[in-house]
Amino acid sequence: MRRKWVLPAVAAVTLTAGVTGGMYLGSSEDGPLKKWIGKMETDGEVDKQEKAAVNDKELGKVEQAYDLILSSYVEEVESDQLVEGAIQGMLTTLDDPYSVYMDKETAKQFEETLDSSFEGIGTEIGIDEGKIIIISPYKNSPAEKAGLKPKDQILKVNGESVEGKNLYETRLKIRGKKGTSVTLEIKRDGVANPIIVKMVRAEIPLESVFSAVKEEKGKKMGYIELTTFSVNTAADFKNHLQKLEEQNIQGLIIDVRGNPGGLLSSVEEIVGNLVTNKKPYLQIEERNGDTRAYFTNLKEKKEYPIAVLMDKGSASASEILASALQEAGGYPLIGDRSFGKGTVQQPVPMGDGSNIKLTLFKWLSPDGNWIHKKGIEPTIEVHQPDYFNLQPLAIDKTLKRDDNSEQIKHAQEMLSGLGFESSRDDGYFDQRTEVAVKAFQQQNGIEVTGKLDQKTAGAIETALIEKIKDEQNDIQLKIALKYLAK
Amino acid sequence: MRRKWVLPAVAAVTLTAGVTGGMYLGSSEDGPLKKWIGKMETDGEVDKQEKAAVNDKELGKVEQAYDLILSSYVEEVESDQLVEGAIQGMLTTLDDPYSVYMDKETAKQFEETLDSSFEGIGTEIGIDEGKIIIISPYKNSPAEKAGLKPKDQILKVNGESVEGKNLYETRLKIRGKKGTSVTLEIKRDGVANPIIVKMVRAEIPLESVFSAVKEEKGKKMGYIELTTFSVNTAADFKNHLQKLEEQNIQGLIIDVRGNPGGLLSSVEEIVGNLVTNKKPYLQIEERNGDTRAYFTNLKEKKEYPIAVLMDKGSASASEILASALQEAGGYPLIGDRSFGKGTVQQPVPMGDGSNIKLTLFKWLSPDGNWIHKKGIEPTIEVHQPDYFNLQPLAIDKTLKRDDNSEQIKHAQEMLSGLGFESSRDDGYFDQRTEVAVKAFQQQNGIEVTGKLDQKTAGAIETALIEKIKDEQNDIQLKIALKYLAK
Repeated sequence: MRRKWVLPAVAAVTLTAGVTGGMYLGSSEDGPLKKWIGKMETDGEVDKQEKAAVNDKELGKVEQAYDLILSSYVEEVESDQLVEGAIQGMLTTLDDPYSVYMDKETAKQFEETLDSSFEGIGTEIGIDEGKIIIISPYKNSPAEKAGLKPKDQILKVNGESVEGKNLYETRLKIRGKKGTSVTLEIKRDGVANPIIVKMVRAEIPLESVFSAVKEEKGKKMGYIELTTFSVNTAADFKNHLQKLEEQNIQGLIIDVRGNPGGLLSSVEEIVGNLVTNKKPYLQIEERNGDTRAYFTNLKEKKEYPIAVLMDKGSASASEILASALQEAGGYPLIGDRSFGKGTVQQPVPMGDGSNIKLTLFKWLSPDGNWIHKKGIEPTIEVHQPDYFNLQPLAIDKTLKRDDNSEQIKHAQEMLSGLGFESSRDDGYFDQRTEVAVKAFQQQNGIEVTGKLDQKTAGAIETALIEKIKDEQNDIQLKIALKYLAK
Repeated sequence: MRRKWVLPAVAAVTLTAGVTGGMYLGSSEDGPLKKWIGKMETDGEVDKQEKAAVNDKELGKVEQAYDLILSSYVEEVESDQLVEGAIQGMLTTLDDPYSVYMDKETAKQFEETLDSSFEGIGTEIGIDEGKIIIISPYKNSPAEKAGLKPKDQILKVNGESVEGKNLYETRLKIRGKKGTSVTLEIKRDGVANPIIVKMVRAEIPLESVFSAVKEEKGKKMGYIELTTFSVNTAADFKNHLQKLEEQNIQGLIIDVRGNPGGLLSSVEEIVGNLVTNKKPYLQIEERNGDTRAYFTNLKEKKEYPIAVLMDKGSASASEILASALQEAGGYPLIGDRSFGKGTVQQPVPMGDGSNIKLTLFKWLSPDGNWIHKKGIEPTIEVHQPDYFNLQPLAIDKTLKRDDNSEQIKHAQEMLSGLGFESSRDDGYFDQRTEVAVKAFQQQNGIEVTGKLDQKTAGAIETALIEKIKDEQNDIQLKIALKYLAK
């Protein structure tokens, strides 16, 4: 799985979608949905005058509150602040984390980050039940190397709480010049105390397609990983697939694990290479309940079998791909249940540099299922081993026999993942935990003390990261290869 | 400290303030601040027309967003919802938990609860750093009996998250018919797992003044506890004080521990009995920075010494009383640092049944200190013993030697508070913990198993609650009595 770290200028658009953990219709959109958007604009024109009269009455109360706050609040307030608060407040009532307002400044800084690459820690973030969470770190990014995991909740950035912050504000705090460092405070399910993770920012490349040929039972299997769905992804996918087919692959794995989504047009084009026109690959539901089915132009299916790898970080466009391949293509989904985002957004400019990215419709699977907040169940459910949920070990003082702490609990779980069973994993440093530590130290050329010091903790962490990176331990991939070769 | 549980109709107004953990100017307000409010209304009139023109331009963007959401969001949206969201959103930008919007329904239900008494669990709630917290449970209320503590964070009410809910919504969920039950999920500092507390709602009386005579070194000491500052509090205080003085007290303790505040007029009237006109008892700072000092009419100070008892639940009007008695009266404050709320609110009706309670000014101490978010440092700092921070023991299975859990940690701390030292308090059930459990069981007539079962846990909790209720263990009160008698 060697990758080229190329920085294409256009692929940067991916981020726009990626950062919200979602998919949207970009301005270059020319898929089947364009017509709908045109319709919307026309509608808006028709009853504009009628609406204005109604608004005057309904918004009168907003104006009354606006006047009161401006004139009487204990401190001077900027009118801009109230206007943006009002818009933010209206969007909040929708209870939809994907409908967001970007003020001028945020939108401007955001545009700048779209240039050709960006500098940061390389992770998608999203909102789940009001919390800002990691969707998935990019491959080989500082975020991945530091052990950040999908569903980790971000509590603080550089000591500052993200409570009440939206995704854009949070993302802008995380990003920064290459070589500078940023500290996140993370809350992870099942871990009582927040985890502090310090990372050095790097240039994050935006290549979204990676491929390889893998051997299984003497058969050549094509493997294509999609990390996001950007403007270039579909064309890149086609090129990679063509090269694989030239090598006479006898099966294909499409890996969308940790892929947070992206452009609808991009996933539509990819699905167009794989799923025939016998069934719709997607349905779109408008707010009046009307649904419309969309079909590819493909007549013949591929001669080789296909499988999709997905996990809880596979969201939005990844889920469109997965459900199309499963329900329309009859191909299996292997891995964990997916994220569950079944809506489509479009950014609407407000005319002053700010914009509102609004959820316009739902997408349904070929069979008409809405997977929002549910995710897609895999055809073959395969979980990675427990030790894939690595927690960084923060050892500030040496831990030893009879000590009792959360850190020891993590160390016990990690030692267990490395094959050094310590009989208990509840944080109490018993005699068998000591034996496990000694055995690990022995095997790794560290002075055998039986104590958990910083050096030993660091070595445990490194050993586990190596083990996770080793493709031999990627059980989901292994099952997929076995499935295709049978 | 026996109390009459009387339910006066008028004292109910107290709640309006109490629930926000704060003080406000009620409609019956006739204190020194009335003039200021009149002024504000005049100002509003003067440049009304000018403002209207400006608003049209500034609020145009709000209208644009309003139209977009109404016409295009994936689901039908009520215009009322957007209007209220906009108002809520503007208030949110103030970053002031005490400036809140109450919609028609909330305001209506809220009025109903003000009748003569209310039915609920009896606790003040407030907002601290965006979290909904317990300010302080009322004396003898279900909340107090269940062990809720100031600064406990409320996570859920009856299993439903309060995230994104305001104080009023949360309070209305907690309240309900007497005899019905409500379950809170609580996060307490230093406790990893949320605590589940189930309580049966009761009729909560609204008497706010309690008094007693206490003996110290043969001297008679008056003791007056103020639980809130309602419309009746000042008159009641005067009556209680007169009765104490008729008994020739040689000192007076005013206890505002756990008192979240209330009406400004109420505390002003009380301070008028105690602090002379040599120094201001309070300063009010308007938003333009102008400050005005307020003086009592009192010429002579009391012949006896006075001390104030306060803690981290003493907020707002309690802090006005404390700072007036300290800085203007020269009396000592004994206990813990107070809550820290230095602003004044007034509810402004919106004309349709809803209203905005807005922060209008800051209050400063006699010497001009603004204690907001800092609290007042006690003159004599005295903390209650650690075991006052009782955590309910939730034992779902019997715990024994070599077990390791959060519950064991709590039990160890509680046993320690009861005098059964168990050598460690980190949750590991070692031999000495077993000895402590056995000793407790022996002394309390429970079968001596050395295991922590539900019966033993219940007995530990009961014993500790008894110990906390015992006035002999109220160290803050003891120190105050000693101070006055010296």
